[in-house]
Amino acid sequence: MEIIFLGTSSAVPSRERNHAAIVIREFGEVFLFDCGEGTQRQFIEANVSPMKVDKIFISHFHGDHILGLGGLIQSMGLRQRETPLDIYGPKGMKRVIDAITHTGYFKIEFDLNVHEVDEGIVVETEKYRIETTKTKHSVPNNSYSITEKKKPRFLREKAIELGVPPGPLFGKLHKGEEVEVEGKIIKPEQVLGEPRKGLKVTYSGDTRPSMKLIELAQDSDILIHEATFEEADRENAFEHGHSTAKDAADIAKAANVGKLILTHISPRYRQFDILEREAREVFENSEVAEDFKVFNINSKNKN
Amino acid sequence: MEIIFLGTSSAVPSRERNHAAIVIREFGEVFLFDCGEGTQRQFIEANVSPMKVDKIFISHFHGDHILGLGGLIQSMGLRQRETPLDIYGPKGMKRVIDAITHTGYFKIEFDLNVHEVDEGIVVETEKYRIETTKTKHSVPNNSYSITEKKKPRFLREKAIELGVPPGPLFGKLHKGEEVEVEGKIIKPEQVLGEPRKGLKVTYSGDTRPSMKLIELAQDSDILIHEATFEEADRENAFEHGHSTAKDAADIAKAANVGKLILTHISPRYRQFDILEREAREVFENSEVAEDFKVFNINSKNKN
Repeated sequence: MEIIFLGTSSAVPSRERNHAAIVIREFGEVFLFDCGEGTQRQFIEANVSPMKVDKIFISHFHGDHILGLGGLIQSMGLRQRETPLDIYGPKGMKRVIDAITHTGYFKIEFDLNVHEVDEGIVVETEKYRIETTKTKHSVPNNSYSITEKKKPRFLREKAIELGVPPGPLFGKLHKGEEVEVEGKIIKPEQVLGEPRKGLKVTYSGDTRPSMKLIELAQDSDILIHEATFEEADRENAFEHGHSTAKDAADIAKAANVGKLILTHISPRYRQFDILEREAREVFENSEVAEDFKVFNINSKNKN
Repeated sequence: MEIIFLGTSSAVPSRERNHAAIVIREFGEVFLFDCGEGTQRQFIEANVSPMKVDKIFISHFHGDHILGLGGLIQSMGLRQRETPLDIYGPKGMKRVIDAITHTGYFKIEFDLNVHEVDEGIVVETEKYRIETTKTKHSVPNNSYSITEKKKPRFLREKAIELGVPPGPLFGKLHKGEEVEVEGKIIKPEQVLGEPRKGLKVTYSGDTRPSMKLIELAQDSDILIHEATFEEADRENAFEHGHSTAKDAADIAKAANVGKLILTHISPRYRQFDILEREAREVFENSEVAEDFKVFNINSKNKN
């Protein structure tokens, strides 16, 4: 799984940091989390094709998280995209897309499927599951987690022992289906190993420290959490519905995650060492994201 | 007068060129012509404060000319702008601003004065005049010219000869008002030199070669003209309502301008020498704009 940061600033961009946008590539798909102004150009700079995006997840409707949608979608249209695009966001997402598609001339030849999410599972395939929960910003904000559904190991020797001939029946059992062999029912649990934990990444969007986020992020390999402010600006964080780096670290620790990546950094900080330091005092494996930084996690290294 | 190119690409941005946006600084004001996605960040990169923009002129409502408005205006709001902002554009400009201010949460504390322009003078002060005309794109497009109103020289010796005492009456005469000295009326034309031509810059927006643009641009010091394509792609230019570099040069020559600057370059051209070459064959003083290129013209060097 590849995580590519396209924008890591907060409300206003800086020379170094663009508005919020994070790409995740895995399961043969490209997922985009938030889409601030200028995201289509950040794709170009990162050598990732914006055409390939399959699903977009929006945390909330502040400009710095949505104002790149119009340009990205129109450029997909100009490049003759035909595949439908799925966009997920809080209640009101349809109205936002409606405003975007009515800003000047707007013509695309592919379908936009807009999904207004509440809480729980929003996408589920054989390979992965995306869940969301409402967290605590100045306006409604959804956090998202993406979890690999990793099959238990198939115990080949055991299946043969039970009389199952190698071939298509192995596949059925591994998928979780019962099979019949010479009048005898073989159940999947007889030939499957222990459940295996798949990769999991959670993204906070903009939020104050949230109990529900701890729940959503539980045991994630990576938690991407906003850290708009440092401790000295804690008042500011509270007032504007944001977290400090230490807040994010508290959440990471409580959720027992593998690694914490801090993003949505206020442009007031030219040096962000202090954010990293403050987070590490609470949760050692913390790192501040930068535009175009790439993180790879591999499910083979797990379990 | 300072002309700063913030974006010089066409519909889709490239690594080197952002969407359309041109700043002109003069008369104690900052004017912005078009405002493609990402313009607020281009301001930062160019070391020009986006807060200082007084008036915005939009040529037409394709995304690459307007999608930066929302972010720019919201950032002005976040930075506590109080001065009203004037936005000029073709008929429909109000609907566009309405869609922009209804895209997600949007809160500003200053007034947006939106002006839908047709043809003729759209702004006139003591110091300058901004005129517009409708030109020929796939959707309605307005081109703009900005002209310095340069006062004729005040003939001090002549005024003294006519009995006008040095002092406030000099100012009145220079401004064009009659004054009375010892019962005698002195008219401004008696003490003013020849009319002097002020600086003039014209911007095409997106257009096919247009007779009306030749008229608007007549005798400009600088004509900024779109040149989306080279001659080999002439069909394409015609089909999409654009000009080639040679088209732009033909206009520059017919309008008797001082210098031609080509912009709105298709990202298909990695080398743009050919555009410059094709233009120069027709009009020698031609140059292709690049992002962050600055042109200075000085009215003292004229006449």
